[in-house]
Amino acid sequence: MITIALDAMGGDFFPNVNIDGAISATKKFPIKIILVGNKQQLEKEIKKRSNFPKEAIIIEHSEDIIEMTDSPSKAFRKKKNSSIHVGLELVKTKKAQAFVSAGNTGAVLTASTFILGRIEGVDRPVLSAVIPSEKKPFVMLDMGSNVDCKPTQLLQFAIMGHAFSKSIMGIENPKVGLLNIGEEKEKGNITTQQTHDLLEETNLNFIGNIEGKELIKGHTDVVVCDGFVGNNMLKFGEGIVKMFKTFFSEESKKSLLSLIALLLLKPTFKRFKKKFDYDEYGGAHFLGVNGISIIAHGSASETAIQNAIKMAYQSVKTNMVDTIKQALKQSELHTISEVSKNGS
Amino acid sequence: MITIALDAMGGDFFPNVNIDGAISATKKFPIKIILVGNKQQLEKEIKKRSNFPKEAIIIEHSEDIIEMTDSPSKAFRKKKNSSIHVGLELVKTKKAQAFVSAGNTGAVLTASTFILGRIEGVDRPVLSAVIPSEKKPFVMLDMGSNVDCKPTQLLQFAIMGHAFSKSIMGIENPKVGLLNIGEEKEKGNITTQQTHDLLEETNLNFIGNIEGKELIKGHTDVVVCDGFVGNNMLKFGEGIVKMFKTFFSEESKKSLLSLIALLLLKPTFKRFKKKFDYDEYGGAHFLGVNGISIIAHGSASETAIQNAIKMAYQSVKTNMVDTIKQALKQSELHTISEVSKNGS
Repeated sequence: MITIALDAMGGDFFPNVNIDGAISATKKFPIKIILVGNKQQLEKEIKKRSNFPKEAIIIEHSEDIIEMTDSPSKAFRKKKNSSIHVGLELVKTKKAQAFVSAGNTGAVLTASTFILGRIEGVDRPVLSAVIPSEKKPFVMLDMGSNVDCKPTQLLQFAIMGHAFSKSIMGIENPKVGLLNIGEEKEKGNITTQQTHDLLEETNLNFIGNIEGKELIKGHTDVVVCDGFVGNNMLKFGEGIVKMFKTFFSEESKKSLLSLIALLLLKPTFKRFKKKFDYDEYGGAHFLGVNGISIIAHGSASETAIQNAIKMAYQSVKTNMVDTIKQALKQSELHTISEVSKNGS
Repeated sequence: MITIALDAMGGDFFPNVNIDGAISATKKFPIKIILVGNKQQLEKEIKKRSNFPKEAIIIEHSEDIIEMTDSPSKAFRKKKNSSIHVGLELVKTKKAQAFVSAGNTGAVLTASTFILGRIEGVDRPVLSAVIPSEKKPFVMLDMGSNVDCKPTQLLQFAIMGHAFSKSIMGIENPKVGLLNIGEEKEKGNITTQQTHDLLEETNLNFIGNIEGKELIKGHTDVVVCDGFVGNNMLKFGEGIVKMFKTFFSEESKKSLLSLIALLLLKPTFKRFKKKFDYDEYGGAHFLGVNGISIIAHGSASETAIQNAIKMAYQSVKTNMVDTIKQALKQSELHTISEVSKNGS
């Protein structure tokens, strides 16, 4: 049985969305969940729920709470008994196989790196998100954990993203693209130009540069970029989707006719939400650490938490960490054989 | 009378959208237009139009056409008699006060820099776009002309964007924000951290870092970023808006009910288009060159061309280039006085 540690004290609506997300997840998947948080507070909330599955969810007490505004490194040093710390320790000591949190992203990243450690050959772990598109969801990384990236780091992101896409999204030979401002090889800044050269040398299915306007079409399975660009784009996209929602909700107040029309379109908007809402995609994977660590959005809903748990479950089931380890080793072998081939 | 040179051979739908955009613009604004392009071809097209205002639009012949796929620097060297070249020469020799093109962006940028020259004190000219938002449109720069930027360059972008916002958008004391992945001063990459320090020293109305998700709310008048990030975000945003359109148009085919509902919402979608479609905002200004040069989208419609001409007209009328010159001089004086103050 797969066991997942869930940060009960994370996110804007803790502990309730976490408890409810955990309950729905246990009904859908053959898993056990360890709710990590203040025992007293959690037990009080659980008592209110008649549908709580005592056999599938247990509580692990933690004392400290890392606030969303806390400094990640300071929080890591000073709050050793936080739900994030305790949850990740459960993974490290193999009492759980994955950790999920909607808490302070920086704090989860810092604690994951220090507690789980990095996979051999990884310079910097990377935050990867599953992004909806017209065709099908794709993996984009880095989404914000590394703001100044070297080409070799971007290369590692590509290898890890490729392994993730294969393992979790079930794509046979994922297409890898490099985010850039033009299709041609010589386009972009110095980092992307050098990364392009490196990616061409790999045995990944590298399809070249991909432009921002092409992303949403979904012709690429893995998109590589530095965390500064990735984070800004992700947030910009979220902002636009939110803006659409606000626009239509305000329009519905303008006239009875628009209200009726929008009500008629309810199934359409539902399909839209199903396809493009980030709630459906759960959370962002922190790849390159020696274990599974998933960060859900701070404003994650019950559905989002349930889907983040689903992702954790799939990652364990498909041995994602091992797949990444092997991919990194193979790329090293490939590089070595390329070097010896060129050298001979 | 303000005279504007329009590249008749630019864009995906030349020369027709350019001719029609020019005609509508002359009906709306007190301007003259010089259509730059192949005289024979243009005269043939013009003959088909009964509404062509002969007193307001004249033709200037150019021989070469720069294709959208041409290399900008090669095109600049080899096609000296292109519509872009001839049009910009008209501005340089003061036969026109502004140039508008929907042609090869790189070629227009290169030719503008070489033919018009840079304003004193400008290291790198910058492509700035007017971006729609919930509240009101704002200026974002750089949108793609400089992919590796130094903090001092970003500072200059801020000064030019501030002057543009004041001059063209009529904002008294524009709020300037620095695009970043967090609000706090210490967030971001090395470049944004150093730029933040520089911006704090200016007398601009600097409001600090602004995140991608905040952009669309429109609380900032000027947003500064490097061209790599700006271009990717702009194109990503365009891609998302396009994806929405595709989604709803496909939904309308799914059932009669959705079709009716979407027809009822026509005024809503019209309002949406008016507010968020980039056609309404005409083109991107290339700031920092010694003259007015505006680049419209390659797929610009007649409306977009008309609005790009409108922007050109406003820029001339408000003496935008002089405003930028003064702003750069003032910022220098400010810096010098700061230095002498600190030194004394």
